[in-house]
Amino acid sequence: MNVPKNEFKRVVIIGGGFGGLNLAKSLRNKDFQVVMLDKNNYHTFQPLLYQVATSGLEPDSIAYPIRKIFKNQQRFHFRMASVEKVNTADKVIETNIGQLDYDYLVIATGTTTNFFGMKGVEKYAMTMKTVSEALDLRSLILQNFEKALLANEEEQESYMNFPIVGGGPTGVELAGALAELKNHVLPADYPDLNIKRMKIQVIEMQDELLKSMSDNASKKALSYLKELGVDVMLNKSVASFDGDKLTFKSGEELESKTLIWAAGVRGNVINGFPETSIDRGMYVVDRTSKVKGFENIYAVGDIAYMTTPLFESGLPQVAPVANQQGTFLAKNLVRVRNNEKPLEFEYNDQGSMATIGRNRAVVDMGKIKFQGTLAWFVWMFIHLISLVGFRNRVITFFNWSYNYFSFDRGARLIIRKFQRN
Amino acid sequence: MNVPKNEFKRVVIIGGGFGGLNLAKSLRNKDFQVVMLDKNNYHTFQPLLYQVATSGLEPDSIAYPIRKIFKNQQRFHFRMASVEKVNTADKVIETNIGQLDYDYLVIATGTTTNFFGMKGVEKYAMTMKTVSEALDLRSLILQNFEKALLANEEEQESYMNFPIVGGGPTGVELAGALAELKNHVLPADYPDLNIKRMKIQVIEMQDELLKSMSDNASKKALSYLKELGVDVMLNKSVASFDGDKLTFKSGEELESKTLIWAAGVRGNVINGFPETSIDRGMYVVDRTSKVKGFENIYAVGDIAYMTTPLFESGLPQVAPVANQQGTFLAKNLVRVRNNEKPLEFEYNDQGSMATIGRNRAVVDMGKIKFQGTLAWFVWMFIHLISLVGFRNRVITFFNWSYNYFSFDRGARLIIRKFQRN
Repeated sequence: MNVPKNEFKRVVIIGGGFGGLNLAKSLRNKDFQVVMLDKNNYHTFQPLLYQVATSGLEPDSIAYPIRKIFKNQQRFHFRMASVEKVNTADKVIETNIGQLDYDYLVIATGTTTNFFGMKGVEKYAMTMKTVSEALDLRSLILQNFEKALLANEEEQESYMNFPIVGGGPTGVELAGALAELKNHVLPADYPDLNIKRMKIQVIEMQDELLKSMSDNASKKALSYLKELGVDVMLNKSVASFDGDKLTFKSGEELESKTLIWAAGVRGNVINGFPETSIDRGMYVVDRTSKVKGFENIYAVGDIAYMTTPLFESGLPQVAPVANQQGTFLAKNLVRVRNNEKPLEFEYNDQGSMATIGRNRAVVDMGKIKFQGTLAWFVWMFIHLISLVGFRNRVITFFNWSYNYFSFDRGARLIIRKFQRN
Repeated sequence: MNVPKNEFKRVVIIGGGFGGLNLAKSLRNKDFQVVMLDKNNYHTFQPLLYQVATSGLEPDSIAYPIRKIFKNQQRFHFRMASVEKVNTADKVIETNIGQLDYDYLVIATGTTTNFFGMKGVEKYAMTMKTVSEALDLRSLILQNFEKALLANEEEQESYMNFPIVGGGPTGVELAGALAELKNHVLPADYPDLNIKRMKIQVIEMQDELLKSMSDNASKKALSYLKELGVDVMLNKSVASFDGDKLTFKSGEELESKTLIWAAGVRGNVINGFPETSIDRGMYVVDRTSKVKGFENIYAVGDIAYMTTPLFESGLPQVAPVANQQGTFLAKNLVRVRNNEKPLEFEYNDQGSMATIGRNRAVVDMGKIKFQGTLAWFVWMFIHLISLVGFRNRVITFFNWSYNYFSFDRGARLIIRKFQRN
């Protein structure tokens, strides 16, 4: 791979998600050469992918060109590449566009969808981990209504059932957004269709929604979803899906053409690492983010398995951890290069939140827990300021304001029809 | 096809472009049932597709959901369908989603790219008639630069040559937008690449650009493109393209991976019509928009071949003609139904314009012709107010303001990699 050599140590970062981005930004003017590799030429603000899937935002609001973020950063190089393997003995990364050697390697590859071995689900379910997947889901949802118009009553049900598996933030927020479409947008769009027959189900195998949040938040999320007309099924597990019918472990069945899978993730582990470096599909790292068994390889974010005094069973796989680890690792890389002892990371948990349709959100901030309209404004504010770049913030703010006051969603475009393989 | 029957006469409009849209809007409350068919669920503002292709706008700024336009219009029905044939004897349309009968049929299918029988061009050239095509071109342009980074000098040239065939408004505006990318955006994005080696060529077989506009406009467009560093080749025709190399009729060659074809259009004629109804690939219509040989079939916009006293060799294939014909036909359909004599159409030509990069445009308005910054503001204003919907206008206005003041383009995202078949 064609990257100029210079006298600075080279840090290669695999992945332009939250962790990789913050690390690379924090290495500015720190006398390293930084090379970032990513399959895409943009950073994705994953927490808002569900709004792309439900026609609320276009991709350019939540995706940001990586080259643009770093356009004035000296000694930063981006290459669009898929990493195939790391040769740790020779300190060489093998990619689809050639080899690249490194002094320090940082793995920030995040996670992908976990289907837990269910082949039918893997083949037929819709996922929402990338912009392309969110656009496919947007197209499929809209295509379903076009098809329901032409179908008989039984088929209509199948097109208008939207089971979402997974009662975490992704599942809950998507269910809320779909309910808004059902309640405010689709009836006017499809006057020939009885939109009341549209059903949204949230299927969660545990006994509450938002398990990682407070009981208050879980209960309130449940009542919000019910208010919006969403069917919440707790203590319920999926056994299989064949593209037309969802079968539960209890034996019950649900007709649906559209299973949305938000039930779990697994790490994007790269070839070339010994089993001892990996646990639960993540790289085992110490509190300096160093991967077990290696001196010059680090991992941050969702792909890193780090335990700390406050989080003895491992840090949560959320954006703030990745952000903080990225920034922290930049300091440690400087220390390591200067032969100073690296510092130990601890996560500063500032809370978590989820939104469920308009004027409804749940927020946990340490001991402060609140829900409702104020929570919803806090949710919007935090997400707006977290977006990368002034332009994306303004466009998102305008779209949200427009959606709020018009009860509308502007991007309900089937640009590329979704077709099953 | 599942469309409710009622006591009103049914007008079926094939195509949701400018002509179809204006017709359907003008039929509001006119005691017709209106059914619109289109392959896409959105209207495309084609004059700005080139801005999608050059990362200036996202599709939702220039595409508008058809159902949303008509959401409060009584007795309007939309179906997403591809029309396969018209059975004129039985007054039935055959589509991929079933049959539909009509009382009045209006063909508003517009045009598609004309490759003039050149198979290699058809196979390998990029076009810009649909949102998908514009997104493909956006991806390919950006992918080319990612690949150029990895290539040797000779290959780099091939990735960084962007020949555009056709010196009409589309070719000229696209060339200007690419030149802006070259001059302001790409050098910072690709510090490892010598962007000066990027070359944009406009290839026109006639002896001037913008043949349909005034001499002033043609000359000024030429000098603007030269100022921006675009190679303009007049009196030059393409013989073939094989995906890597463009060959001119003169025998000269140009290495390029990316041929952009904006050289001509042909009508989207539907199966089922006699040859006598068709001329130059368009439906021959009288001045009431009625197709030759039929009593209840009409055509508007680019697909209609209409001669008038002011335009004896046929009306130009431009958006204002389609808009005016759509509105006019609505009046005539009412008259025909009421057994009144239909009126004869004449095109009210309010002029034409083209923009060539920032602060540069050419405008012909009757006898008034002007160029430069004022023309550029007029171009922007006219295009903004022509966009469908308040939301699209605001988003486009913000994007243009942002692009203007930052010299940036926000949407340079390779969301779906472009792959040749």
